[in-house]
Amino acid sequence: MRINGTHYRSIWPIGEDAFGIIDQTKLPHAFVTLTIRTVDAAAHAIKSMQTRGAPLIGAVGAYGLALAVREDASDDAIQKMVEMLAETRPTAINLKWALWRMRGALLNQPRDKRAALAWQEAALIADEDVAMSEAIGKNGLKIIQELAATKKRKLNILTHCNAGWLATVDYGTALAPIYLAHDAGIDLHVWVDETRPRNQGASLTAFELGSHGVAHTILADNAGGHYMQHGQVDMVIVGTDRVTANGDVANKIGTYLKALAARDNGVPFYVALPSSTIDWTIADGAAIPIEERSEDEVLKMPGRLPDGSVAVVEIAAPGSGAANPGFDVTPARLVTGLITERGTCAATPEGLRGLFPEE
Amino acid sequence: MRINGTHYRSIWPIGEDAFGIIDQTKLPHAFVTLTIRTVDAAAHAIKSMQTRGAPLIGAVGAYGLALAVREDASDDAIQKMVEMLAETRPTAINLKWALWRMRGALLNQPRDKRAALAWQEAALIADEDVAMSEAIGKNGLKIIQELAATKKRKLNILTHCNAGWLATVDYGTALAPIYLAHDAGIDLHVWVDETRPRNQGASLTAFELGSHGVAHTILADNAGGHYMQHGQVDMVIVGTDRVTANGDVANKIGTYLKALAARDNGVPFYVALPSSTIDWTIADGAAIPIEERSEDEVLKMPGRLPDGSVAVVEIAAPGSGAANPGFDVTPARLVTGLITERGTCAATPEGLRGLFPEE
Repeated sequence: MRINGTHYRSIWPIGEDAFGIIDQTKLPHAFVTLTIRTVDAAAHAIKSMQTRGAPLIGAVGAYGLALAVREDASDDAIQKMVEMLAETRPTAINLKWALWRMRGALLNQPRDKRAALAWQEAALIADEDVAMSEAIGKNGLKIIQELAATKKRKLNILTHCNAGWLATVDYGTALAPIYLAHDAGIDLHVWVDETRPRNQGASLTAFELGSHGVAHTILADNAGGHYMQHGQVDMVIVGTDRVTANGDVANKIGTYLKALAARDNGVPFYVALPSSTIDWTIADGAAIPIEERSEDEVLKMPGRLPDGSVAVVEIAAPGSGAANPGFDVTPARLVTGLITERGTCAATPEGLRGLFPEE
Repeated sequence: MRINGTHYRSIWPIGEDAFGIIDQTKLPHAFVTLTIRTVDAAAHAIKSMQTRGAPLIGAVGAYGLALAVREDASDDAIQKMVEMLAETRPTAINLKWALWRMRGALLNQPRDKRAALAWQEAALIADEDVAMSEAIGKNGLKIIQELAATKKRKLNILTHCNAGWLATVDYGTALAPIYLAHDAGIDLHVWVDETRPRNQGASLTAFELGSHGVAHTILADNAGGHYMQHGQVDMVIVGTDRVTANGDVANKIGTYLKALAARDNGVPFYVALPSSTIDWTIADGAAIPIEERSEDEVLKMPGRLPDGSVAVVEIAAPGSGAANPGFDVTPARLVTGLITERGTCAATPEGLRGLFPEE
């Protein structure tokens, strides 16, 4: 993706003894890159959320392990560092998957080749993630192209939260089709839900789209339904944290409300995902546990003061508490299609098994 | 309503030469009352939004005119002051209505009695508004009582924005039934939508409920649908800015999304209103003009810094713009009932004309 005309990934190698990341804790208020030179710095970057997004964390863990192997390539050291890195974000499946893959690629190899092999494998993990996002993007692009051909005017696409390249290595999931459509010259404009309480739309998605030059407008989460009623939304695309075998979609809180409004107004509602997001062991979305997050995310708000410094203000009535479910489940019946790296399918057991017959 | 155990109205006479209001620009960060001693101070209070809410502004205008009449009770002075006060909030129908009523009550009376008459008429306007809200409250209370009898457990009621006593003289509209139910000992808990972008739920509604001792929890606007899916919302009550003759409801942006979720989950969705809110000249809600407000309300946020001072922070990606429609229209088909001072009716032309046959 581009920032001020320069192409970036969200993680990049620097020679063979360091890698770079964007400090996402500073976004959108400042664009700061970090050079990571040690495995401890990589672990800190994950723990402190300087880097975030399941696919991206996997790549950071892989490069972090590769840095460790340069210092000590013994079996014991690799095992110890894999365990240390895995504990930096215990719930992140992609992180464990990347670390186990790295370990598997190294343990049976000669020690003097492990450092170079580790660097290559980490690069492969990052490249494969880019290829996955690009495939999702190309499949979504077909839908946008068809819509553009039908509407014959500027398209308005609404998205919720951040499923962009900042959460992956490049392109993103929900935003990948938008970037490809923009780069292909399709005239489009994105409605960006601010996505309370963590504001990942107003901060990260708006930052991404603005940096890449995609026309966009931030909305209070309350406003999307109104624009759908008035024909000003042609399509909704969101990402997801988990899709069940019957096509129910867990995603950032508020996604369900947009899906209801889309259905009520005949607006197509798409979900973009890598197939690793599909949980084949669960049929019904009601079985997905919903994380209850800190009330501080609702009651407090970070932002820039007039002098440019960043402060956190308390925004609600003193003494009132808040509830903060992080995700909700959109029933499959409200989903027009699931856009995956293999193609787009209906949000049904038959649709999913048609694309993934091996599951 | 009670604040720290003391009963307040949102406007109160002080002797016969001043009146008090709550400075709503300071809420919820500080509770500050103002003593208004001159018509100019009353005009400033309306213009600067120290006082807000259509019914309340009418009462402030009436008392403000009464203060002016103490200084100069001539026909010319009254006419001039009515015009001056009416211009402080040109779109507020209630303000004009109250001022014209005051003028009508004074112009044909002996000059030496006008000051006392004006004070009485202003008090009457305030009292009538309280009676109106109380009647709405009692009609809504019946619905809550029936629900409590059916559920036989604590009731969870969701509301959006602020339709409470701070916008009226006492009780409010949507919150009036909740206050009466609470005072009647019905076990209830209120989900308070924070109501971005102006946060009138997290600030004003939470302040009101907390001050009165009503159990409540603030939610991101995104979360209400999730709680409805999980059976944790028994009823929705909101206020309205305008109801059309066929029952469509214009209210604070985001109301439509909650109505969709209520319908999808079988949760009753009520709208509370004084009949002065019904626009008999419009059938279809699509004809209601929607105010587009400043993008600053989306991009910036006021709140308390750690030292207790109030600051405004910029929360979004620098350079990204925002759209900010102030209201949306909930179609009558999604409304379970309209709670008015005369009773509750279906949101249909027949329902409305049944309660208001004279219209």
